[in-house]
Formats: sequence, C-alpha cells, structure tokens
Amino acid sequence: MRTLYHLWLSPQCRKVRILLQEKRLPVHLEVEPIWERRTAFLALNPAGDLPVLVEPEGQTIADHGAICEYLDEAYPEPTLIGADPFSRAEARRLAAWFDTKFDHEVSRPLVAEKVMKRVLNQGEPDSRAIRAAAINLGTHLDYLTWLVDRRKWLAGDAYSLADIAAGAHLSAVDYCGDVPWSDYPQVKDWYVRLKSRPSFRPILSDHIPGAAPPRHYADLDF
Amino acid sequence: MRTLYHLWLSPQCRKVRILLQEKRLPVHLEVEPIWERRTAFLALNPAGDLPVLVEPEGQTIADHGAICEYLDEAYPEPTLIGADPFSRAEARRLAAWFDTKFDHEVSRPLVAEKVMKRVLNQGEPDSRAIRAAAINLGTHLDYLTWLVDRRKWLAGDAYSLADIAAGAHLSAVDYCGDVPWSDYPQVKDWYVRLKSRPSFRPILSDHIPGAAPPRHYADLDF
Repeated sequence: MRTLYHLWLSPQCRKVRILLQEKRLPVHLEVEPIWERRTAFLALNPAGDLPVLVEPEGQTIADHGAICEYLDEAYPEPTLIGADPFSRAEARRLAAWFDTKFDHEVSRPLVAEKVMKRVLNQGEPDSRAIRAAAINLGTHLDYLTWLVDRRKWLAGDAYSLADIAAGAHLSAVDYCGDVPWSDYPQVKDWYVRLKSRPSFRPILSDHIPGAAPPRHYADLDF
Repeated sequence: MRTLYHLWLSPQCRKVRILLQEKRLPVHLEVEPIWERRTAFLALNPAGDLPVLVEPEGQTIADHGAICEYLDEAYPEPTLIGADPFSRAEARRLAAWFDTKFDHEVSRPLVAEKVMKRVLNQGEPDSRAIRAAAINLGTHLDYLTWLVDRRKWLAGDAYSLADIAAGAHLSAVDYCGDVPWSDYPQVKDWYVRLKSRPSFRPILSDHIPGAAPPRHYADLDF
C-alpha cells in the first residue's frame, strides 16, 4: 500500500492528498508529529518536513513539489499540470504562489497561531500575527478574484495543480474559520466548484480532535 | 532576444542562468531592483520576486521552479532533471532543499546581511544572524559530504538540477567569502567540477560594484 506521511492542516499535504484522489490512487495516511524529529522519519526525509510519500514498492519521495511532479509523470491520467509548456508554467507559477507566498503570509501563521499552539500547548495565540494574516488574506482574495473573473480555472481553461494548491491552502484557512467568503463571491463560486469534486471529499471530512472546524467547513452550500 | 530579470547574488537567478548556459540558450540579463516595486515589473510578475524570464516571442514565465521545469520541457537537450521518475524526484527534492531550506538557513541571511545592507545603505550587518548562518552552513556541508561520498553527482550518476541549484547557492555564499572549503575536501572536489563547467563561467565573472568577491571566488584551483 502507498503511504503518505502528513499533518491534517498542512496545505502542502492537502495538495498531495487531493492530487492522489484526482488520480484515483489509494493511499494510507500516517500522521507524523514532525516536532518530535523521529529518527525513523528523518531517515525517510532528512529535511524533516511533510509530506513524504512512500510508494507501494518502497520508494520514498520527499518534498511536496517533487511529489506532485512525480505523480503527474508516473500516473499521467488525468494530467493535472497542463497540456503545453506555457500552460504548465502558469499552473506551476500559481501553485508556487500559494505554497510559498500565501503560505508565508497567510496559511502558515494562521494555522500555527490558531490551531498548532492549542494542540501543542504552546500558549496563547498572537493576535497581531492573526490580524496581519487576515489583512494579507484580503490581498490574495483580490488576486484570486482577478484570476477567476478572467479564467475558467486559475491557470486557464483547464483544472490544474494551481486550483489544487490554492484549494488546499484555502481549505486549511477555512478550517480555522477565517475566510470572509461573502466579501468575495467570485472566489466563493470557484471554491464551491472545487468542494464539489470527489477529490475534495476526504479533506472536507477532516476533524482534528480538540480543534473542530466551523459548521460551514464541509457544506457545499455555505 | 530572451531576457532574464535578475539580481547578481540571488541563488535562484543564478540557478536559471546556469541552466540557460547548459542548454546553450542566449539570454540578455536585466538587473531588477525589486525593492522599488516598479509597476512595469509587477505586471510581468505580480509576486514581485525574481527571476522572471521573457522568451523571444514575448511569453513571460515567473517563479524559479516553473522556469526550470519550462526550460527542461521546451529545450529538452540535454535533460537536466533526470531520466526516470525516481531520479527526477531526487533531483527535484535536492533542488528544493537548497531553494528553501538552505536559502532560509544560510544564503538568504548571509547575502542580506553582508551585501544587500551595504548596497542599500541599510546599516550595519547583524553579527548574530551571520554567526547563525555560518553554523547552519556547517550542517549543510556535512549533508553534502554525505551525498558526494556516495554519489558521483548530488542526485545520482548524472549531473542534474540538484547540482545546479546547490552550486548556485554555494557560489552566492562563496561570493560573500563564507565557505570553509578546507574543512570539507569532498564538497570542494565536487564544487571544483562544477566550477570547471562552461555553464559556470558567467557566474564566476560576476563583480558587484562596491562588493567585490574574495580573490579565490573565480579560481578553479583554490
């Protein structure tokens, strides 16, 4: 069986989970408490981060970007990066936008302050960091509005890794209850289309003990 | 003509410059002062970061990872990511290691403190940040030693994007004069092989006004 080492609210792990679902590849999920720095886990990935994929034959693949490229090469049906070099560059640009810029400015501080501190007993959330992330989120939602006003999917006509990465990050932020959906109706329409895909269902049924999602989190009609 | 918007000591820009050389693709370099946030540049790349590639026909590609994948797809001779999905995953894992982990722990703070503060008149370098980066550099050089003791090139038998990314970062740190080469002879041997490649020559002739490199920087025998 294929195994994915992950954490529930890591957007990069969610991205790989959605991609695996799109390609109908069964996977066993293993929660990895990376803060414990287990020797056996560091042997799989000396960088110590998540996700890490172990294929059924035992080959290990680390780094979320490398995992997505690997899955799209090894299991090309359906291709989720794009049909020609320029579409592929655009899908990758936007996936990287969410996995670096959005991650740094929004999802990482929000998940860290609102969920991980509670789960790991690390004290009170830093309200200044949460406010800064909320302001940054608005800027990103403006950019998403600009994109979905002009394109069917984020990178163009085709659903791609860009939508998957963006959805993975927004779903983690939405789990924390922080997306002002009613102010961004076009982005909400696009997100409803993502939520309706079977690949999103496992993500929407996530439920972390001690940190329940808001009621609308799994609703398609929210 | 193809144009690359870049900064001299950005390792991600150096990575793309080396890759372009390996593929014998001529390029015009344009220095972009990203701290000015020029409107015309933000129109090319709303993320505001470097490098950005503009192809001869005018198509724009942003994000260093997307640029490298694009170049290897559009100009596949020689392929520099690997021959099979697992070699490709290993080259990408290591390239990401340098572009995220090494960048965060070593090259970004060193270049920021030792060069950019001087160039931008931003005050004295933070000696604590420089000491921390130097300690982190030792850990990374240990990992590089482990890799080159076991493999011909970083990702395996073939020269790849992993060597290019690692060389790009180490060359930026070496420009600042901070690599303790004599303590890491195996890594030095591997780096000598990189430096000897024609693709590395333009990097070695970089010379930033007001921030000259140490004398050994361009020497093949150092």
